[in-house]
Parts: sequence; C-alpha cells; structure tokens
Amino acid sequence: MSETNCLFCGIVAGSIPATRVAETERAIAFMDINPATAGHLLVIPRAHSTDLREAGAEDLTAATLLAQSLVSRVIERLDADGANLLSCIGEAAWQSVFHTHLHVIPRYDDDPLQLPWHPTPGDMDQVQATAAKLV
Amino acid sequence: MSETNCLFCGIVAGSIPATRVAETERAIAFMDINPATAGHLLVIPRAHSTDLREAGAEDLTAATLLAQSLVSRVIERLDADGANLLSCIGEAAWQSVFHTHLHVIPRYDDDPLQLPWHPTPGDMDQVQATAAKLV
Repeated sequence: MSETNCLFCGIVAGSIPATRVAETERAIAFMDINPATAGHLLVIPRAHSTDLREAGAEDLTAATLLAQSLVSRVIERLDADGANLLSCIGEAAWQSVFHTHLHVIPRYDDDPLQLPWHPTPGDMDQVQATAAKLV
Repeated sequence: MSETNCLFCGIVAGSIPATRVAETERAIAFMDINPATAGHLLVIPRAHSTDLREAGAEDLTAATLLAQSLVSRVIERLDADGANLLSCIGEAAWQSVFHTHLHVIPRYDDDPLQLPWHPTPGDMDQVQATAAKLV
C-alpha cells in the first residue's frame, strides 16, 4: 500500500522525518513544515492513494475523524478561534503532494489567510513548540 | 435533531427550497446558490450540529463519503480538472451558516479562485443546468 518516491509514504514508513502529533491504526497527523498559520497540520491515511477520490472508505473515514479531533484540539490548545479543513484534489485545486491529505488550518480572528497560500518554510523551533502543545 | 431558525435544517426538512443532487440516509447534497465556481455544492449531515467539531461520527462519515462521491462526479460530469473539499469551523474561518457543511468546489485549470470568495448570487438557470448534470 505504499508507493516509492511518495513523500508522505516515506513519512508513514518513518524514512522521512516529520513531527507527528497523533496517530491511529489507519491515519497519522503531523505538522506542515510550510504552515499557512501557526499550528497547520496534515492528516493522511497511512495507505497510499493519489487523492481523496481514490482513498478507501475506511481510510478516508479514519483520516476525517482524526482531523475532526485535531480541529477541536487546535482550538482548545492553541487558543485558535476556528479552523479550516481543506483537501485539494488535483493540481488545478492546489494539490502538490499526491498522497491524500487533509489540511487542518487553525484560524485566528482577523488573521490575513487567503488561499492559495504561498508555502514558505516555517520557523522550525516555533513549529516544534506548537507541536508540543498538540501531542 | 433539527433546530429552529437554522437555514440548513429548513433545507433538510424541505421547508426551505434547495436544488438537491444527492442524498443518503444521513446526509444530503445541494447546489450552493452563491457558487464560488460552476458546480459548487454543499454536503450536510441531516442532523443539526453547529460545526464539524460537534457532528457525530456517523453523520460526519456519511457527509464525507457523500462528498467524496461528488468530487468524482463533478470532475467526470462537469469536465472539472480538480476540486476542493472545504469546511469552515467558526466565523474566524469564514463560516457563515452554523450547521456543519462541507463545500465541494469544482476547480478548472487556471480558474481564478481565491479563498475567501465573496459570495454573490449565481445565475439560477445556470445553477439548475449544472445540477441537472449531477443528479
């Protein structure tokens, strides 16, 4: 179920480093290293699928329920005022890694977020400090 | 499980009109009358919850799986090049109707979509014609 050269399959396998904050039998959640806002997370099924269309029902359900719990967690623990759940299916929809993923983007009153955002590397100390509040 | 004065509970009950394109035991899908792109759909659990955090697992799963099938459908039947799945949790995250909903937004190569979009009423003839391709 994993695919050679897939970045997120590498994260699932542990051969590519990532800061995980939660995991279940079928899904994992880790920090986005190019955060759109503080606390931006990615939730993925462990099993490879190119995009949400191809994800198996159990895998998509597991990822969605994990994302739901993380929405609550970022609002409670990061004092966020809301969150967006976003999935991008296809390049036309801003998908850049072709392994199904759900973005959990914490939102803060009057933050300036617009989508598409322009991914730029986050301050890794800050990302790690935020992750520590979420595990 | 329905709430007085909730627009989407009214749509579920049939007391407020909407152009439905799909429904299951626990979820329904209908056209957004302020489409961000052609074919913009909303998928909601029938049971009321304010936002995704509060949706029951079975309801959220049902809405997600219905949204998944509609992502495939808009790409196939509307010749879309992709799609976004989006949920807004809280005003800070652009939520404006407080009944859990998932946006399915068809995407077209080089469309100019940015989020937040500025909801403006769609041409209802066009919305109906698009809906007819999706049922």
